[in-house]
Order: sequence, then C-alpha cells, then structure tokens
Amino acid sequence: MRIITLDDRSMENILADMLKRDPNNYDSYTQTVEAIVNDVRNRRDEAVFEYTAKFDHAYLDASGIRVTEAEIQEAMEQVDAGLLDVMKQSMENIRSYHEKQKRNSWFDAKPDGTILGQKVTALESVGVYVPGGKAAYPSSVLMNIIPAEVAGVKQIVMVTPPGKDGKVNPVTLTAAHLAGATQVYKVGGAQAVAALAFGTQSIPRVNKIVGPGNIFVALAKKAVYGHVSIDSIAGPSEILVIADDSANPRFVAADLLSQAEHDELASAILVTTSMDLAKKVSLEVEGFLKVLPRSEIISKSLDNYGYILVAESMEKAVEASNSIAPEHLEIVTRNPFEVMTKIQNAGAIFIGEYSSEPLGDYFAGPNHILPTNGTAKFFSPLGVDDFIKKSSIIYYSREALEKAHKEIELFAEAEHLTAHANSVRVRFE
Amino acid sequence: MRIITLDDRSMENILADMLKRDPNNYDSYTQTVEAIVNDVRNRRDEAVFEYTAKFDHAYLDASGIRVTEAEIQEAMEQVDAGLLDVMKQSMENIRSYHEKQKRNSWFDAKPDGTILGQKVTALESVGVYVPGGKAAYPSSVLMNIIPAEVAGVKQIVMVTPPGKDGKVNPVTLTAAHLAGATQVYKVGGAQAVAALAFGTQSIPRVNKIVGPGNIFVALAKKAVYGHVSIDSIAGPSEILVIADDSANPRFVAADLLSQAEHDELASAILVTTSMDLAKKVSLEVEGFLKVLPRSEIISKSLDNYGYILVAESMEKAVEASNSIAPEHLEIVTRNPFEVMTKIQNAGAIFIGEYSSEPLGDYFAGPNHILPTNGTAKFFSPLGVDDFIKKSSIIYYSREALEKAHKEIELFAEAEHLTAHANSVRVRFE
Repeated sequence: MRIITLDDRSMENILADMLKRDPNNYDSYTQTVEAIVNDVRNRRDEAVFEYTAKFDHAYLDASGIRVTEAEIQEAMEQVDAGLLDVMKQSMENIRSYHEKQKRNSWFDAKPDGTILGQKVTALESVGVYVPGGKAAYPSSVLMNIIPAEVAGVKQIVMVTPPGKDGKVNPVTLTAAHLAGATQVYKVGGAQAVAALAFGTQSIPRVNKIVGPGNIFVALAKKAVYGHVSIDSIAGPSEILVIADDSANPRFVAADLLSQAEHDELASAILVTTSMDLAKKVSLEVEGFLKVLPRSEIISKSLDNYGYILVAESMEKAVEASNSIAPEHLEIVTRNPFEVMTKIQNAGAIFIGEYSSEPLGDYFAGPNHILPTNGTAKFFSPLGVDDFIKKSSIIYYSREALEKAHKEIELFAEAEHLTAHANSVRVRFE
Repeated sequence: MRIITLDDRSMENILADMLKRDPNNYDSYTQTVEAIVNDVRNRRDEAVFEYTAKFDHAYLDASGIRVTEAEIQEAMEQVDAGLLDVMKQSMENIRSYHEKQKRNSWFDAKPDGTILGQKVTALESVGVYVPGGKAAYPSSVLMNIIPAEVAGVKQIVMVTPPGKDGKVNPVTLTAAHLAGATQVYKVGGAQAVAALAFGTQSIPRVNKIVGPGNIFVALAKKAVYGHVSIDSIAGPSEILVIADDSANPRFVAADLLSQAEHDELASAILVTTSMDLAKKVSLEVEGFLKVLPRSEIISKSLDNYGYILVAESMEKAVEASNSIAPEHLEIVTRNPFEVMTKIQNAGAIFIGEYSSEPLGDYFAGPNHILPTNGTAKFFSPLGVDDFIKKSSIIYYSREALEKAHKEIELFAEAEHLTAHANSVRVRFE
C-alpha cells in the first residue's frame, strides 16, 4: 500500500479520487436504468420476465417468480446446521440491538386545553433488495429484514436475483424465512426496484425500498424516489482505520483487507500518527496478499483506492476521517473512546483493537447496511427509523384557540392567505 | 363542491386524479431542471447570476447575492410590531415542540465486555429553501430553520428568490434572522438547489437541502439527491376532513377553503357519514366563495381536486382517508381521539372542531412542512430527525470477541469473504 504524508493537497486528491466511485457519476447508465423503470411501469409482469431472462438468464413467469413454501422448506433442509446456529445467534443480536431503536408515540397535554404530540406508525409495506444471483449474502438478508420486522411492518417483500437455474440460494432463502420476509420474489436489478415501486400483476407495490445493490439498483432507487421512499443510495464499501503507534499492525492490515476484498471500487484507508506503524502495516498487507484467495480483487482495490496516510497529529487524523466520512471507521488508539467523541461523520464506529469490522458485518447486532462514499455526512445506518413515519397531533380546546385566534389571523393576513384567517375567524363570530 | 358517494370506483378515480399532481409526473420539466443543475455545477456563480437575471429579473453578482447585516437591520425596522410579537410567540411554540423531538445518543454496556450504541450527531450544514419572490412566507422560514437550530446544526444557509428590485421581503428576512439562519442568499429555483448541493464561489455547499418549493425546486432536489440528502419531494397541498353529523358545517367549509386557496393544484376533501352535513358544507362553501378575495384560485382548485365524499360508515371514511394519505387531516367527529387511533397515513392530524388547520400552519408548534400528495404513506413532517444522523458504536473486549470469533469466521466463510474471516482469525492465532 502506498504511504502518503497527510496534508491539504494529498487530502484534496484523495477526496476527488474517492468521489469518482459515486453512483451519481455514472451518467451513462442513467438512461438505460430509466428505460427499464418506465418499461416495467408500463408493461409490468411482461417486462419483468423479459429483463430477468435477459440479465439473469432465468426464464420465469407468473407461476415461478414467487418463491413457494415448498422451495423454502427444501432450502432450509440444505443449510448446514452449524451455519444455521450462527445465523440464529446473529439474528438474536440484531433483533436485540434494533429493539432499542424503537420509538414511542408521545404527547404533551397542558391544562390550558391543548394536546400536541407525535404519532409513530410503522410503514405498511416495504421492499428489501438483497444482492445475489447464485452468491449468498444471508447476513444482508438479516440486516435488511429484522429492522422492518421490529418496526412492525406488516408486509416485507424481499427481491433478489435468481441464478440461471431460476433458483435462489438456499442460505439466502433460509435467512429470509427466519428473519420474517412475508414474500420473496426472484427478480433483481432495476426491474426489481421498478416492480416494487409501481407494482405488477405478480409483485405488490410497496411504500419504501431499502437495501444495497449494484449501480443499476442504486440508480433505479433514485429514479423511483418520490413515488416511494428509499433508504439511501448505496455506493461501494470503505473502511478507514485511525491508529496510533499502540496499534497491532497485523490486525490493522487484516481489517483493511477485509473491506478491500468486496470489489475493485472498495476503499481501505489507514490514517496514523506513526510512520513506523504505516510501514509495518504495509508489510503485513503484502504478506496477507500472498495467501488470501481474493488477492486479485484486493490488489486492484488497494491500487485504486487504498492509502496509508501519515498525519502529524491525532487531531489532523480525525479531521481527515471526518472529511472522508467513512462507512466503517475503526479507532485503534490508546484512548479510543476519547477519539470517538471527535468523530463527526461515520456510518459505524468500531472502537478498540478487538472490534474488528467483520464483527459488525456478521454478529454484534448494529446494522451493516451503512452510508457509503462520504454520505455518512448526512445518511444513517439502516434501522428501525427507516420503517416508521410520524404524524403530528394537534388538539386545541375552544378556550385555547380563543386565546390565540387573533394572533393566528394576523399572521395569516400578513401572508395574504385570507381563507386561512377566515377559518379561525368563523369560530368566534 | 361536488358530492359523491364513496365506493371503490369513486375512490379509484379520485386517487388517479390526485396523482396527476405528482411532481414526478412532470417529465417535460426534468430535462430543463437537469440542464440548470449541471450548468450551476460546472459554471457555479456565473450560472447562478445568469439564471437569477433570467427567472427573477434581478441582476445580482458576488457583491449582492448574500444578504448583508445592514439589510437585515433595515428589514427588522420595517416589520409591524404586532406581527413581530406574533412571530416571536409562534417561534416559542415551534421551538418548544421541536425540543421534544431531540434524541439522545445511547449505549448499552454489558459486563461481558461489550458496548453497543448509537451516536446522534447534528448535520454540520444545511440549506433551507424558502419560496418567495416579493411574497413573504415568514411562517415557512420559522418552520424550516427552527428544527435545524434545535438539532444543533452549525451552518444554516437559507436561500429564497429575490424580487425584481434584488431584495428579499423584510418580513422573510426578519424571520430568518430571528430563527437563526447563519447566511441568507438571494437565489431561488433549481439554481438555488444546485448551488447548495455543489457549492459555488459565493454559496457554500451543504449536507442536506430541505423545504418546499415549486416544481423546479422539487425536481432539482431529486436531481441532487445522493450528492446531498433532501427532506422529501414536495407537491401541492391538501386537506382532508373526516366528519360525522356532529360537525359544524360552517367550520368545515372554512377549513376546506383554507387549503384550496394555496393554488389550483391544491386539494380539499370532506369525507363524511352524513349526507345532511355534505349538503350544508357545500352551501357554506358557495357562501364563502362570494366573499373571499382568493375565490378565483379556490374555485379552480375545488373544480379540479375538491370532493365531498359520503361514506356509509366511519370505518369506510377512515379507509378512504388512509388511501389518500392527506397532508392535513382534520377529525371532527363525536369521538375524534378514537378515530385518530385508526389513522395510518397523514402528515398532521388536527383533532376536534377547534383545531383548525391554520392553527398548525402558524402557531401551535408542530411543523407545517408536511408530506404531500399521498407521500404521508412513507414521509414524515419536517423535524429534528431531518437534521441529525446516527453512527453505530461497537466495542468488544478481547474476551467477548474470543467467545464469538469462530461463529463470525464461519459466517464470513459461508459468504466466501475470506479476508473478513481472516481479520477475526488473526487476533487469536
């Protein structure tokens, strides 16, 4: 990994480099995606089946696009008992964490005859996108579905692309069933997002679409935004490690590589106050690259978006991290909780040398669907908040309104909204 | 107002009619808006000044686009003392309500050496869009800015279109100053949204853009979504009143008209179990139309999107309301709180016959920037949540990770993410 001195100029270059990965920059795909979305909106099932044949080479029709009970039973029987146990333990941790995110409706009743409040209601139906094909990401299934289930969503519709054989990976299906998906459809890409946004004969329309996906999924989510809600626009993954000279270089190197293996657009960055650590981590990375199976992807990702930045102070290191706003942030310093207090932007913050990033991907409980590519400046991890909405509650007694009615009329008249003023006035004629 | 029997067919027609107002359907504007957004992204200030000249007929440059301290002082001196008092009282109510929306960071520390939590951080900078020109909507200024200020946002950048004289209405400026805007720029439309999303020489880039606007603003917000966050895509306003035979027809009519006066796309709907009330409300509407100054807009809006629906039961009335998912919902029945429990979708719920909708627009405290046009199925009122974001916190001790490390490795290997498994494994070699 290249070692670079952290300063304003190197930061500027890195930030510009990172932003090249932004799904919003892939203008050339926008038209393709919008054409698919409109086609599915108009021709519905027919278009969905055609795109599934074209992109996934799976030939499904109305009788085959929805996963059946029998398929789920068959899938569950195929899953390794050890993996099933781990998935159940992980589910318990995820559920327990997300239960703590639940929010009450609240009200404030005052003796002047007013009640103000906020009513929290679960969304009625959501669509969860799970990437796939024949690859299985059961952890993403759990992370997508459990918060919806905890929030109280009645209809949780999962979509995931089928393999060429028209099947969904059995581990994925098992996870979907355990987590509480109410329906699973074998459809992926922009066509899946469009189907969920507008509904087809086979696939129900939902209120919100969540979950990560490739560039087509990201752009399709943006295209349907407003017709439905979406969680965020997912880009490629990244990890940033802030470390001082107390960090174990072998652990840091291994953690950087765990993100770099995702794909060639993934980014792994170490920001350290120690040139000695920088060099040691670089060496450890070389060592791991010789033995890890996915070393080809890892090398490309490190060449593209891997950096070891040497900062003159912890303050500068934190500043760099806040500018990058990483999806995953590890803090491996002598006083990691104190450093945490200075973090403005990060999806998930892993504290201390035993809080390895994959612990969060698979097991600890917090969601692993996180804001990527700098969007942690304004987006949050997927959570129960994504599956609820709020309504304001306003009650005024006659007496309470009488005390305020002249003020309201005056304010409305000042905006030349006379019918607004009138609606209060008539009550005291 | 037309009186229609509520049934599946009439509901279907009304829902289809209402959706014609959706900003997402104005495809013909999309290209225009995207051209403006790209132009501002590339040519920055230069493009902003050109569009302001073209659309607002105001000729501003870098020296004039930002509102000065002197302009604010001048504006404050021009505002009527009575209006200033009302605005201050309203501000107090808005602040008090939004203070209750604030959320704590939380953590859960277990004696097994694990700490999981959620850190709540205010966004660093936001842009608030306030519609205008020479019209003044000081209430929207307060509703946009106060939640950001309560959340702890440091930089609150307001944009609003100037009049032909290059000035912003003094009441708008006064409200901005009182509420806590840190900067105000004289720019509106898609060019304002693009400037806030990408930054120009004069206008700073922000993390999120909130606030309602016309179709150009709505489409521009969608275009920049992902580069920044946005609150929602605002469409035209609507009110729905659920009433039984106990309701005062004069009050109901006045409230329907208060929304209809906004613009010709606004919608006003009464759903009632009483044919008698339906007829009386229709008559009262005719009466008011003769005396209200904005009767031309009101008539058009009622002709387009005004309905009195007669339902066979309160259950059916509630069902219709939930399908429409109105921005503003009034419940004027004998037991309005009980009806409220059945409401699934609404932006703000006004309960009882003295909770007139304009009370919420101007005074009570809950936000008046609400999800419109059916989006209350998935969007929420603007609030403190719009100005914060969350980061997950994960700490595991060596002992805690040791207990779980085999499980994590197994799960990672099942997804063929070997570098993930490796990062946990190396800690226990």
